[in-house]
Formats: sequence, C-alpha cells, structure tokens
Amino acid sequence: MKKLINSPDSVIADALRGVAAAHPSLAVDLENRVISRAGGATPGKVGLVSGGGSGHEPLHGGYVGYGMLDAAAPGEVYTSPVPDQILAATMAADGGAGVLHIVKNYTGDVLNFRMAAELAEDEDVRVVSVVTNDDAAVEDSTYTAGRRGVGGTVFVEKIAGAAAEEGADLDTVARIATHVNEVTRSFAIALHAGTVPAAGKPGFDLAEDEVELGVGIHGEPGRERGAMAPVHDLVGYSLDVIHADRPVTGDVLVMLNGQGGTPLIELYGAFAEAVAWIEGHGGRVARSLVGNYITSLDQQGFSISVMSLDDDLLRLWDAPVSTPALRWGR
Amino acid sequence: MKKLINSPDSVIADALRGVAAAHPSLAVDLENRVISRAGGATPGKVGLVSGGGSGHEPLHGGYVGYGMLDAAAPGEVYTSPVPDQILAATMAADGGAGVLHIVKNYTGDVLNFRMAAELAEDEDVRVVSVVTNDDAAVEDSTYTAGRRGVGGTVFVEKIAGAAAEEGADLDTVARIATHVNEVTRSFAIALHAGTVPAAGKPGFDLAEDEVELGVGIHGEPGRERGAMAPVHDLVGYSLDVIHADRPVTGDVLVMLNGQGGTPLIELYGAFAEAVAWIEGHGGRVARSLVGNYITSLDQQGFSISVMSLDDDLLRLWDAPVSTPALRWGR
Repeated sequence: MKKLINSPDSVIADALRGVAAAHPSLAVDLENRVISRAGGATPGKVGLVSGGGSGHEPLHGGYVGYGMLDAAAPGEVYTSPVPDQILAATMAADGGAGVLHIVKNYTGDVLNFRMAAELAEDEDVRVVSVVTNDDAAVEDSTYTAGRRGVGGTVFVEKIAGAAAEEGADLDTVARIATHVNEVTRSFAIALHAGTVPAAGKPGFDLAEDEVELGVGIHGEPGRERGAMAPVHDLVGYSLDVIHADRPVTGDVLVMLNGQGGTPLIELYGAFAEAVAWIEGHGGRVARSLVGNYITSLDQQGFSISVMSLDDDLLRLWDAPVSTPALRWGR
Repeated sequence: MKKLINSPDSVIADALRGVAAAHPSLAVDLENRVISRAGGATPGKVGLVSGGGSGHEPLHGGYVGYGMLDAAAPGEVYTSPVPDQILAATMAADGGAGVLHIVKNYTGDVLNFRMAAELAEDEDVRVVSVVTNDDAAVEDSTYTAGRRGVGGTVFVEKIAGAAAEEGADLDTVARIATHVNEVTRSFAIALHAGTVPAAGKPGFDLAEDEVELGVGIHGEPGRERGAMAPVHDLVGYSLDVIHADRPVTGDVLVMLNGQGGTPLIELYGAFAEAVAWIEGHGGRVARSLVGNYITSLDQQGFSISVMSLDDDLLRLWDAPVSTPALRWGR
C-alpha cells in the first residue's frame, strides 16, 4: 500500500487540519471532530447535521455551508462517528428551530445517531432523523438491515438544506428529506476495490475481467460478480436495475458519481451513456452532477443516482448553495 | 486494464458527448472537438483559448466559462490537438479584441498552437501566445525543450480570464498571464502511474516502496526515484525544490492537486503538511485549492503549485468565476 498519509492512525486528524486551512467558510473543531459553518448556526433556521465514516469525501464535510448542511461529524475511515461527536455537531447546528439528522442506513450510524439524538433532547434540542436507503442493489448487506444509504444522500442534503434555508420548519424539512429519499434510487459498479489505510490492502479482489455489480460504498458485495464490459453495458445494467425498482420516467436529476479513483474523462463517457439510456426509455435528464461526490477512498468505479423531479424539487435543487463541493447561484 | 470506456478509440468522443449533456453553459462542437461558452464569444472582450492532450480533466474544458476560458481544444489522450481544431477554438473565442493562446510547454502543443495562430492571423484574428513552464522539477524532459507547463496553467487561465473579463486589452492580458507563470512554481510526486486507454497498462512501473519525484503530467520521469515516505516528507521534498528555485515567502496561493486517482481525504492531509511547511518558512497561504484540477488519468500522487500573490493578483484571483470546475463569487 502506498498512500499519502503519515500513518493510518493520523489520517482523519491530518485531513481535518487540511480542511480547516483550506476553507475559511468552515469551522473545524479538531478535538470533537466536527465541521460546521464558520458563522455558526443560523438563528431560527432548522439545523442540518450529517455524518458517517470517513473515506467518502467530499461527503459530508464538503457539503457544509449555505444552502446545505450546518455541521458534519466524520468518523474514522468507514466507521460511524460516536454519539458525543454527533451531539457536538448537533449543538453546533442548533439555531433554535430544531435539528435534522441525515443518516445513511448503516447499523452503526443509525445506532449512534439515535443515541446522539437522545442526548440532544436532554439539552432541549429537538431532533428529527431521516434515514437514507436509496441503494437499489440489495435488500440487506454487510452493515445494514434494509437497503444502504448511498448517493441519494447528496440529494437529500442539498434539497432539505434549501428548504431549511427558505425557512421551512423541522417537520417540513424532514418530510421533504424523506420524500427525496423515496424518489431516488442508486446503483454502483466497482472495477477495483479501495484500500483502507489501516488494512493496507484492497477491500476485495477482482480479476482483470471481473466487476462487482451493486457494490456498496465500503466495498460491500453487491448482487453478483460480472464480466468486465464496455461502459455502455455497465451503465445499462445499472439503469435496468434502477428502472425495475422505480421507473425512470419524466424529468430526472442524475448523478454520475466516481468512487474516488476513476478519472473524470471516464465519468463523462459514462454519463453520456446514461443520458442516452434514459432518453431511450422516455425520460429526460433535466439536471445532473458528474464527478466525485460520494467516494470510497481510491476505489475505481461509478455509481448512478436517479431522482424524479417535480417543480418543488427542481426549485429547491436550483436554489443557491455555497459549500466547498457544491456551489452555484449565489 | 479495466476502464469505464467503450473502446480506446472512442474515449474523447464519448467524454465530449457527456460534457455536452452535463453542462448547458457550454457549447460542444463534437466534430471539431471544441468546447466553448454556450453564449458564444463576448463582443469586445479578449478571447482566451487553451488546449492540449486529454486525460488532464477538468483541464481545460472544465475551465470554460465566465471569468476564465472562452474555448478549449482537447486532443487525444496525452496528444496535442491539431492546428485546425485550435483554429476552430480560436474563431469560437474571438470577440473582436484578439485571442490569447495559453499553451503548456510541450513540443507538440507549442508547434500546433503556433500553426493555428498563423491560420487565425490569416482570418484577421490577432493572436498572442503565452507558454506556461512552471514545473520546477526538470529543465528538459521527454516531450519538452525547457520546463514543462503544469499546474500553474490553472492559475494563468483564472487570472488572465479575470483580466479579460474586466476589459483589459490583449497585450495587457498576455502580460498578466506571463507574469502569473513567472511567479508560479510546481512540483509533483507519483505513487502509481496512470494508464492510457490505448496503451492498456500503466505508463511506468514503481515498486511498492518507490515514488517518482518530479513526475510530469504524462508520467514523464522526474528527478529521481525515491523511497516511499510519510506525506510530511513528500510534501517537504516538493516544497524544498520549489523554494530553492523561487523562494516561498509572503502571501501565496497554493494548489494541492490530485493526479486523478488519489482520494480527497489524502489531498487534505497533504495540504495540511504544505501549510505547516510554508508557515514554518515565513510564508502565508492566503488562498488555496485542494482537489483534482490538472490530472493524469487515474495516476496516484499529487502536485503542489505555489504562486506569489500581490494585491492585483489577489483581486483577479478573487474575481467571479463560473465554470464547471471553478466557481465562486457570482
């Protein structure tokens, strides 16, 4: 293993020092490991908190800022943040109107966010939690009862963030977040596994002619091993699965996401295939993201997330956002 | 080799279809392979054109937009665009005030941009060329007489683009671009080589305990093979080279750039080391970029670019920019 690190033990602390130095718009609490807005919580606004294992950057810290999250709690690589850490993020996000927890559906995350929510209630901060589970690949998996929360989490953070910024109350923001998750499906294929620094070797082995179909964001197994194929076929397989689970029709938002180790030129080629597939099935790609938005360290591969758009969701998607990783309209 | 492609021959065409579908702000001429602003050239504004081999995305197409480039000409992977293609980009960028060519110093690029400039002059478009050569690693190299143009090209495109947007004339924009190149130095280290699709295997081999110190953006050899080391040492080595060539003092702009295959979490850790080094040597990181801005396909490693800031450069750096890959302030 060759990694740009000092030691496997210092990866998160070193990265957080870098985040703090790179982004004056963020406040980084190095001791509690919380990334929040430099200006603090917005009085009267619903606070949005997310978090989870590290290794998925820019998720979640890169989405802290106007129009999206108020605070993020990054755990160790592929490991849930702890309850006290999530509590600290919750308190940093609290502007007096309650706090929404956006939790990807993994057993550790769900448990620790629930404990943090109880601790926050003890501090008189009302918390509502929304659990994302947009992965159409498998019903249960290594770290989950039920479906995994993956790329759709980015959509939830953006759209719920816009609603909160507009002044929606906690129950409304939670309802919108839940709706976004419900109308989003994702699917991922890996070509090469990422390497967790503390493990020192790739999370799984694939032969030169194999891919993992329906892989999770921690390299968890998917539906099956498949044969390596042209990107046209890999994208088609992914959209077939998504479409069978929830029809891809009408106007959609599509994220063609890299897993961290795949070059942008390939992601654009994959996106072209996704657009052709969707148009061929009567849908229309009204909005899109192409790039690395929810990664798995240096894993090679892609994921596709498809969300059905309506006028409200489109307006909230287009609303101004100003974070390190997503920024437009302001 | 496993790549998200249909075939090595279709990589650029497929990616350009994806760029066209993803970015309504861009016009993509699939036949001539030119990416330009959807709104066309800005009347009375100096046009900015860059280009070069593909595989370095988001460079250059991702920097087309308000405050930066007017058009980009992407060649085949690691191969210069051809003169007619650069001519088409130049005509697309021409708003009647002349066109600046921003050319990275590689023999093929310099030659083809020169021929395109002559063709444009025949069409009564005045062209001035600025050649970037900010790589402090080596004097001559595989594809170059003189130093290589690398990460500093991003700074040149941003700052010259801001000057053009403000209404500066062609000679002034060229002078500013030249100045940016002169006050910028870069250095790169690779951990694993990238794979050119048509070649099907990594561009060079490194042992598990080796790195390439001073690598070029096409995997060209650098100063020497070195031993793999903590990121603290690799960043220190890089900044020692840069500092010896041009002192890193005062306020600086720093880009901690990934080569395409290195996860963002590691780039932030590397950036933290760079900030500590620079502050320890009496400098101050006043502005920064951390992420994948000029890549080498799926190569693993990083580059550091350091530019000396003054009030004018700072103002132009901070000026609004709205492109797929850089966006702020507007």
